[in-house]
Amino acid sequence: MNVTKILQGHGSGGKLMNEMISRIIVKTLGPSSIQLDDSAVLEIPSSRIAFTTDTFTITPIFFPGGDIGRLAVNGTVNDLAVMGARPMYLSCALVLEEGLDFEELEAILTSMKREADLAGVQIVTGDTKVVPRGKADRIFINTTGIGVFTGAAGRAEIVPGDKIIINGTIGDHGMAVMAKRNSLSFSSPLESDCMHLNHLILSLTEAFPESVKFMRDPTRGGVASVLNEIVQGKNFGAMLIEDDLPVKEPVRGACEILGLDPLYVANEGKVLVVIENGKADAAIELMRSRPEGVNAAIIGEMIGDFQGKALVRTSIGGRRMLPLLIDEQLPRIC
Amino acid sequence: MNVTKILQGHGSGGKLMNEMISRIIVKTLGPSSIQLDDSAVLEIPSSRIAFTTDTFTITPIFFPGGDIGRLAVNGTVNDLAVMGARPMYLSCALVLEEGLDFEELEAILTSMKREADLAGVQIVTGDTKVVPRGKADRIFINTTGIGVFTGAAGRAEIVPGDKIIINGTIGDHGMAVMAKRNSLSFSSPLESDCMHLNHLILSLTEAFPESVKFMRDPTRGGVASVLNEIVQGKNFGAMLIEDDLPVKEPVRGACEILGLDPLYVANEGKVLVVIENGKADAAIELMRSRPEGVNAAIIGEMIGDFQGKALVRTSIGGRRMLPLLIDEQLPRIC
Repeated sequence: MNVTKILQGHGSGGKLMNEMISRIIVKTLGPSSIQLDDSAVLEIPSSRIAFTTDTFTITPIFFPGGDIGRLAVNGTVNDLAVMGARPMYLSCALVLEEGLDFEELEAILTSMKREADLAGVQIVTGDTKVVPRGKADRIFINTTGIGVFTGAAGRAEIVPGDKIIINGTIGDHGMAVMAKRNSLSFSSPLESDCMHLNHLILSLTEAFPESVKFMRDPTRGGVASVLNEIVQGKNFGAMLIEDDLPVKEPVRGACEILGLDPLYVANEGKVLVVIENGKADAAIELMRSRPEGVNAAIIGEMIGDFQGKALVRTSIGGRRMLPLLIDEQLPRIC
Repeated sequence: MNVTKILQGHGSGGKLMNEMISRIIVKTLGPSSIQLDDSAVLEIPSSRIAFTTDTFTITPIFFPGGDIGRLAVNGTVNDLAVMGARPMYLSCALVLEEGLDFEELEAILTSMKREADLAGVQIVTGDTKVVPRGKADRIFINTTGIGVFTGAAGRAEIVPGDKIIINGTIGDHGMAVMAKRNSLSFSSPLESDCMHLNHLILSLTEAFPESVKFMRDPTRGGVASVLNEIVQGKNFGAMLIEDDLPVKEPVRGACEILGLDPLYVANEGKVLVVIENGKADAAIELMRSRPEGVNAAIIGEMIGDFQGKALVRTSIGGRRMLPLLIDEQLPRIC
């Protein structure tokens, strides 16, 4: 086969598709790790599982710090991990636009395999569809994941005084993609933080099983949107401290130039944690001992007033509301 | 909100998206059946599960006998059922093209919910992405499913003499979509056979636990492609009997006009079963007692010669090879 680009026939039930699946997809994702049957048959070491799905439609598909494949594995791994589950199995469903380069597809799949190995999950089943030019945007990837719960269920209720912590700098992913998309260049390069967080999260929940009250990866909509989710309809509010927010200089600069608030910019390797007040410092110390958490910080706390609202205390001592945005700052960020 | 069409903002992490999810998606799919957390938390009554994924990109999205939503639920339910698993949970990930009518989205979700209820599965987690016009084709749906194995594992080996049976007429789905797509009209209407098969399959495997050797739903690529999969590299072949193939008259007519072979046309409510010779008649009787199997038939058998090949004995007594097609007859059929 001397074809370098995806053709319509690669989406058929026929020979071209079989060749592509065996020569590229199975070869790259690993012969043992993908099932050619209609379903994968799996052993599950627990009767309680987490189940999550995400389709990645990001543009551009390659960006500083990652690509759509890396994103697709880590996004789903992290969605399982923040629930307190141990990610085990992923599915991978591709929608390919006719004309996509095989070389790019291979690079993306290689990246998926590498991330899956690092995160300790297996890609066990897949699907491939091909659509004509102009009916997709090069490649969309759905990853759906299964994680298992091994420990006890349930988390303690959030109360005023609980601390809000994060494992590092905010806004890196969104600004890296934005800069790449608009061919902006800054003196220091912007790079996505795309990263699997399951190992960091597991070490945190093992160390503080009773004290971690909430975890979420602040992707689309950023930290501000997650905070809004937490406080909505509750009898407490959330107050961030602007001076304590870890933001890389080039991200801060790019946000200023573009008029964006880093609190609304997407992250892909960050987890926002609400933890019992007395354990926050120890949690930060633990996070900082790991590569995914070197810039971990306490960024705010839950408060008894401003119920149902998220706010930030500004550097000059005022308060700024962080409403749930109507629209998004950056479309197609994941 | 007075918006009747999908906007970019419906794919953000913001207010428009939250409104759409709560007002349309959760409302339609059922408040108890979809999780707004990052993952659904599920109880699994077995340590052995089946896991499968499929993205549906069919055009047109509404067709006689079904729509993309109905297809998305049944396709994944059937992929689990043919493995011998009991389908339990589905995820639903939507890629929406800007400009899609809310009314259409609601009709599709309503259809998904109805099919899920009929099949006895729950849609438990979801994701929604919006892409600009020209970057998708109205709507793509990924459904990923989990089924559980309750009975014993493993199936007996296929041997020459085993019968090939199917639960009804072939080519209905493909020809219904083809006719709709090309605005062809025939004297009798063509209708998709889109249908969940898990109940039929369960009754069959419960009645003949030792005798069913293989099951597969002949979707993309049709019956001929599944037969090729079965015999590839094996020391037996497959021989169909043309006169025994159940094909509806309008499907046969449409295939003749368009120069298509019904054996390569997609089905969405059919299961091809290889069963021990002595049990085939009883299996047909059981299938015919159910609405999904009224036209069930023995259509051929496994043979000792023509190893690795699929053939059909023609009405005039000759033999015709059924090769694996290079390309597909009908792109975007599912």
